[in-house]
Amino acid sequence: MKVRIYEHRAQYYETDQMGIIHHANYLHWFEEARIDLMDQMGMGYDMMEKQGIISPVLSVRCEYKSMARFGETVQVLVNLKEYNGIRMTMEYTVIDKETGQIRCVGESRHCFLTRDGKPVSLKRNYIEMDRAFREYTEQGKEEA
Amino acid sequence: MKVRIYEHRAQYYETDQMGIIHHANYLHWFEEARIDLMDQMGMGYDMMEKQGIISPVLSVRCEYKSMARFGETVQVLVNLKEYNGIRMTMEYTVIDKETGQIRCVGESRHCFLTRDGKPVSLKRNYIEMDRAFREYTEQGKEEA
Amino acid sequence: MKVRIYEHRAQYYETDQMGIIHHANYLHWFEEARIDLMDQMGMGYDMMEKQGIISPVLSVRCEYKSMARFGETVQVLVNLKEYNGIRMTMEYTVIDKETGQIRCVGESRHCFLTRDGKPVSLKRNYIEMDRAFREYTEQGKEEA
Amino acid sequence: MKVRIYEHRAQYYETDQMGIIHHANYLHWFEEARIDLMDQMGMGYDMMEKQGIISPVLSVRCEYKSMARFGETVQVLVNLKEYNGIRMTMEYTVIDKETGQIRCVGESRHCFLTRDGKPVSLKRNYIEMDRAFREYTEQGKEEA
Repeated sequence: MKVRIYEHRAQYYETDQMGIIHHANYLHWFEEARIDLMDQMGMGYDMMEKQGIISPVLSVRCEYKSMARFGETVQVLVNLKEYNGIRMTMEYTVIDKETGQIRCVGESRHCFLTRDGKPVSLKRNYIEMDRAFREYTEQGKEEA
Repeated sequence: MKVRIYEHRAQYYETDQMGIIHHANYLHWFEEARIDLMDQMGMGYDMMEKQGIISPVLSVRCEYKSMARFGETVQVLVNLKEYNGIRMTMEYTVIDKETGQIRCVGESRHCFLTRDGKPVSLKRNYIEMDRAFREYTEQGKEEA
Repeated sequence: MKVRIYEHRAQYYETDQMGIIHHANYLHWFEEARIDLMDQMGMGYDMMEKQGIISPVLSVRCEYKSMARFGETVQVLVNLKEYNGIRMTMEYTVIDKETGQIRCVGESRHCFLTRDGKPVSLKRNYIEMDRAFREYTEQGKEEA
Repeated sequence: MKVRIYEHRAQYYETDQMGIIHHANYLHWFEEARIDLMDQMGMGYDMMEKQGIISPVLSVRCEYKSMARFGETVQVLVNLKEYNGIRMTMEYTVIDKETGQIRCVGESRHCFLTRDGKPVSLKRNYIEMDRAFREYTEQGKEEA
């Protein structure tokens, strides 16, 4: 799958009085890019939720390398690092589009739950989704 | 009813690169104070939602008088200005606790809906809530 | 001036537990569109700040007409309604791109200040900016 | 030093359409508690900034254990895990005040910079601050 890189323009309301983008907003950008990737995989997050599946965050981490500023456009590279049918790990690299400078690298881990909080095995019960995730993961590995 | 004034400490993540609290955050503070008031009236917003009622915002306005800054504690005075059984209007004054300086004044209007979006008449169907709102509104008027 | 309409995709982190976009986020969208318009006018907000001018919000209002939801793309139409050399008023209409349904209409008023908070007359001291604002306002009126 | 535990009430605007607190907001809570701790140590963040020192985040991580919901009060336990004169690591545990259930655990690493981005050694140039950090760290270790 040829992936279209996700872009975000750093907004004024995302800055703080240090004059930079507040660090918590990068988690928003990760989410934007993750959801965009799943859209591109044909598994829009809204579609998942309509099927009664939610995908909460188990953990997140982010290392800040340089400071993003208001007005710059960042590219958020996102990679489905691991997927095993019940959990997945996504990794992210945020770069300044103009200079290519890395702003941060990060990772988020997710599981799949029903609306009332029970674990879902995509592998068993949502075969089509499971296949899409697997294909994307394998391809990602080959390209790496 | 003796109302406890709602206080909020202006947070670092609420600032922007102008070095002040970003203007959109005042709507958050209005909401915090509105929900706190409804708690004090014995009609917690979580309780309303459990009864299947949501209370979306119809309109909001805010006039900014002076700039709140990181670290200051503001008091959010909130008043139930109007209530007619199907709609309500709340008004707000945000002041710096230390100096008494007014930061902003504002207003929000709300209706009551069921979860699936149908209008609810508290007057007809939720008599207890209706009474609480009326008592609080009348008292507010007398005090004014 | 031919203006490119500003678009925003409603994000997951912008929703609340009512299942809709939280009302405060519309102020963010107004800001995004306002800054984009000023960019198109050749007066990027970052450029203004580099010249030592900030443009705080004096007031804002928003009337919510229908509920925006996660995943939809909205168009934010923005119009420079009034400008007199020391203040300006912008008005906004947010519509769902797919259906054309109006999500909200709003307005924000702004002044111009130096970094240390003194009022700036663009008319007197920043003639080029002043001209750009005037041209855009007049054109807007003619087109209306 | 006897530390007062920081408390935060989970707000409506912090929820998302999953019906829980959006995961990015925990970074805000970490920041609130971190700043509160530094206030208690006599080194308010606003005071640091007045001395021309900023303390950007180098990295952050968070493991989500259970879901916080609107209306609950959480306690944010914060511990100065490491401090060496030029960097520090804070760790956090967020628990539901009522049940004691752990919501998440996390960590953030920080350095100290001048306003124009140059590294600051508190050890060399801000002896008083350095002492306060050290005392608090050592005490933390003894108590552990």
